[in-house]
Amino acid sequence: MTTLETQGLAARHAARVLATAGTARKDAALEAIAAALEARSAWILEANARDMEAARSAGMRPALQDRLALDGGRIAGIVEGVRQVRALADPIGTVTNMETRPNGLTIGKRRVPLGVIGIIYEARPNVTVDAAVLCLKSGNAVILRGGKEAFHSNRAFVSVMREALASAGLPQDCVSLVEDTSRESANELMNLTGYLDVLIPRGGAGLIRSVVEHARVPVIQTGVGVCHVYVHGEADLDMAARIIHNAKTSRPSVCNAAECLLVDEAVAREFLPMAWRLLQTKHVELRGCPATRAILGDVVRPAGEADWDTEFGDYILAVKVVSGPGEAIDFINTHGTGHSEAIVTNNYFTAQRFLDEVDAAAVYVNASTRFTDGFEFGLGAEIGISTQKMHARGPMGLAELTSSKYIVYGTGQTR
Amino acid sequence: MTTLETQGLAARHAARVLATAGTARKDAALEAIAAALEARSAWILEANARDMEAARSAGMRPALQDRLALDGGRIAGIVEGVRQVRALADPIGTVTNMETRPNGLTIGKRRVPLGVIGIIYEARPNVTVDAAVLCLKSGNAVILRGGKEAFHSNRAFVSVMREALASAGLPQDCVSLVEDTSRESANELMNLTGYLDVLIPRGGAGLIRSVVEHARVPVIQTGVGVCHVYVHGEADLDMAARIIHNAKTSRPSVCNAAECLLVDEAVAREFLPMAWRLLQTKHVELRGCPATRAILGDVVRPAGEADWDTEFGDYILAVKVVSGPGEAIDFINTHGTGHSEAIVTNNYFTAQRFLDEVDAAAVYVNASTRFTDGFEFGLGAEIGISTQKMHARGPMGLAELTSSKYIVYGTGQTR
Repeated sequence: MTTLETQGLAARHAARVLATAGTARKDAALEAIAAALEARSAWILEANARDMEAARSAGMRPALQDRLALDGGRIAGIVEGVRQVRALADPIGTVTNMETRPNGLTIGKRRVPLGVIGIIYEARPNVTVDAAVLCLKSGNAVILRGGKEAFHSNRAFVSVMREALASAGLPQDCVSLVEDTSRESANELMNLTGYLDVLIPRGGAGLIRSVVEHARVPVIQTGVGVCHVYVHGEADLDMAARIIHNAKTSRPSVCNAAECLLVDEAVAREFLPMAWRLLQTKHVELRGCPATRAILGDVVRPAGEADWDTEFGDYILAVKVVSGPGEAIDFINTHGTGHSEAIVTNNYFTAQRFLDEVDAAAVYVNASTRFTDGFEFGLGAEIGISTQKMHARGPMGLAELTSSKYIVYGTGQTR
Repeated sequence: MTTLETQGLAARHAARVLATAGTARKDAALEAIAAALEARSAWILEANARDMEAARSAGMRPALQDRLALDGGRIAGIVEGVRQVRALADPIGTVTNMETRPNGLTIGKRRVPLGVIGIIYEARPNVTVDAAVLCLKSGNAVILRGGKEAFHSNRAFVSVMREALASAGLPQDCVSLVEDTSRESANELMNLTGYLDVLIPRGGAGLIRSVVEHARVPVIQTGVGVCHVYVHGEADLDMAARIIHNAKTSRPSVCNAAECLLVDEAVAREFLPMAWRLLQTKHVELRGCPATRAILGDVVRPAGEADWDTEFGDYILAVKVVSGPGEAIDFINTHGTGHSEAIVTNNYFTAQRFLDEVDAAAVYVNASTRFTDGFEFGLGAEIGISTQKMHARGPMGLAELTSSKYIVYGTGQTR
C-alpha cells in the first residue's frame, strides 16, 4: 500500500464513524476546532510566517502573497466561519418522499454523507479550514491536498483540527493532509478509486483542466467563469451601466465577475459611452469588436479571437455589439463556461427567453452576475461553485456534499 | 472532426432545441415513435432476424440468443413501454425553493435536462428504445452505442425513431446510434468531453469497469450487485427462508438478486436446513464457510475467497455463519457493491442499526432485495440502478436524468 492508499483507508474508516456520529457530536467537534484555532493562533501564525518568508524569497507576486498571508484578523474570520458552519442545519438523516407502496413496503430516501471527499486547491490557506468544516458538518471525511506555497500553514491548521477532533471523541482521520505536494501526489489522489467518493478541485483554470483530464475518481468541476452581461435593446441603460460596472469591477479576480459585455446594436451608440464613463473610473481596459471601436474609438483595443474565451480575472473587459437576443444567446452558449450570465432588459418575453435558453448554472435578469455565491443564494456556506451538470450545479452548500440511500421497511415481502 | 465528434455536435444542437421543446411536443414525438414502431415492426423483425442468424452461426449461448431475440410480443411490450413513459409527468421546468432574498433578488432552482447523454450497452436491443425514450421525455439528446451482436436491430430501431422525431417536428439528432461497434468507438465515446454531459454504461461488470477506468466524461456507474441477506439471531426464520429463496431464485441473472446469505451462529443450526429445503427445490448450489459445511454437510461446496466478491448471476449462493450484527455489517460493507442489502430481524434496535450502518443504495428490513427497481420504487420507469454516490443512487428514473439551473429575477441589484 502506498502512503496515500493508507491515508485513504484511514479516511474511509473515519468516514464510517462520522456518518452515524449524529449532529451533537459533530457540532461539539466543530466548536472544539474553533476553540483550538483560537488557542493555537500564535503557533499557526508562526507556521504561516515560514510560508511567507519562502514566498518573498521566491519573488511571489504581491497579490498572491496577500492571498497566502494570515494575521490575527484573518484567523478570527476563519474561526467565525467555523462557528457559522456549526450553526447551520445538519443535512444528514432527513428522509424525503417516504411512502408506502401497494405491496406494503414503506420506502424513503434518506440523506447520507458522500463518504470521503478529496479537495485539491492552491495557495489560500483558509480553504484548509473552510473545506474541512463543511465536510465534517455534512458527515464526510476529507483529504486535503493544498499547494506547496501554503504547506506550513496548512499543516498547522490540520494538526490543530485533528487534535480537536480527538478531544471531541471523533477519529482524527476525519481530516487529513497530503503532505507530499509534488505533482505525483496530485495525480495519485486523482486516481485513488475505491477510497475517494468525490474529488473537488478549487483553483485556477489550469488546475481544474488537469483534474478533469487525469482523474478517474468522480469529480465536481468548479469555478471557471467566463460570464457575460447582455444589454438588450429595450434595457434601462442607466441600470445596465451600473450592472456591468459592478459585475466587472467590484472584484475582478473572482469567478462570478463578468468578462464580456454584449450590447444590442440598436442601443450601442447610446449605451457604450455611458458604460465607458463608469468603467474608466476603475481604469478598465476594453477589448472590442470593430463595431465597438467604431463607436468608442481608440480607447478600445481590438479584441482577438482568444479574448472571447478568456477569464481575465482582471480589469479587462471584452465588448461585442450583437444584432439581438438570438445572437447574444448563441454567443453566450458558445463562449460561456456555464457559470453566471445576465441580461438587462425591460421586455418580459426577452427576459423569459434568456432564462430558458441560456445554459448556465445561474441566469440573471436585471442583476449583476456577482451574486452567484452560497451565502448570497441562502445556502449559508459554500465549498465552491459547480459548473458541471451532474450532481450539483451552481453554489454548493452542505446539501451538495451529500448523497442518499433508500431505506425500506418490510413485513416479509417477496417479489 | 471525427465522425463521433460530428455526431456529438449534432446531438448538442438537437439537445438545445429539445431542452425548451415543452411537454406537448415531446409527448407528441413519443406517440409518433410508438406508432412508427408498430407500423414498422415487420421491418424491425427482419433486421433482428439478421442479428439472430449471425448469433446462431457464431455459436452464441442460448440464454444470450434469447436476450437478443425480438418477436411480435416483445415489440408490443416495447411499444407499451414507450406509451408508459409518455404518460409520466414531465420532470423539466419545475422550480423549487424559489424565494426572495433580503436584497430583493428572487432566486429559484429550475429543473433542466442534463443535455447529451451517452449510453453504452450490450446485447439487449430493447435498451435502444427504452433508453432513448427516457432521455427524450427528460429533454435530453441521446447517443446510443450498443453491442455489435444487436447491430441490425439497433439500427432499425434508431432509424424508425429518427423518422418519427422528424415527423413530429423535433430534430432527428435527438437520438443517434454509434454505427461503429469497435472497441475504438467505445473508447472515443468515453472521452467525448465537450459533447457528452454524462455517460451511462448498462451491462456486465466488465463493461462497467472498462468505462470507469477509461472515461474522462462524467459517468454514472450502474448495476453490479453483490447483494446480501443477513438473518439475525432474532429473526422470524420462516420469513427469512422465504426471503432468501425469493432473493436468490426469483430471477438470478439480475443485479438485485442475492449472492450471499449471512446467518447468525445462534440460529444457524436451526435455520440453514430450513433455507436449504426451499433452495434445493430450485437446485441452488451452495458455497459455504466451514461452519455452514459443518451443519449442512457435503451438499455445500467449500467457498473460496473469490466467492465472497462474486456476482454469480446464477443459481449459486455463498453462505457464511457470522457472530452477530457487527460482523455481518462489516462483511457487507467490505464485500458488497453498495447495491441492495437486507436484514431479517424482529429486533427494533438491530433493524435501525442495519439501516444506519450499511452503506448501500437500498437497505431493507424484512423484505427481499429483489425490489430495487424503478417501477417497484414508484419512479414509473428506470434507466438503470446507480451504485455510485454522486448525482444519483439507486434506481434512476426521469428525475435522475436532469440537472438544475438557478434563475434569478432582479430589479437592478449590484453587489
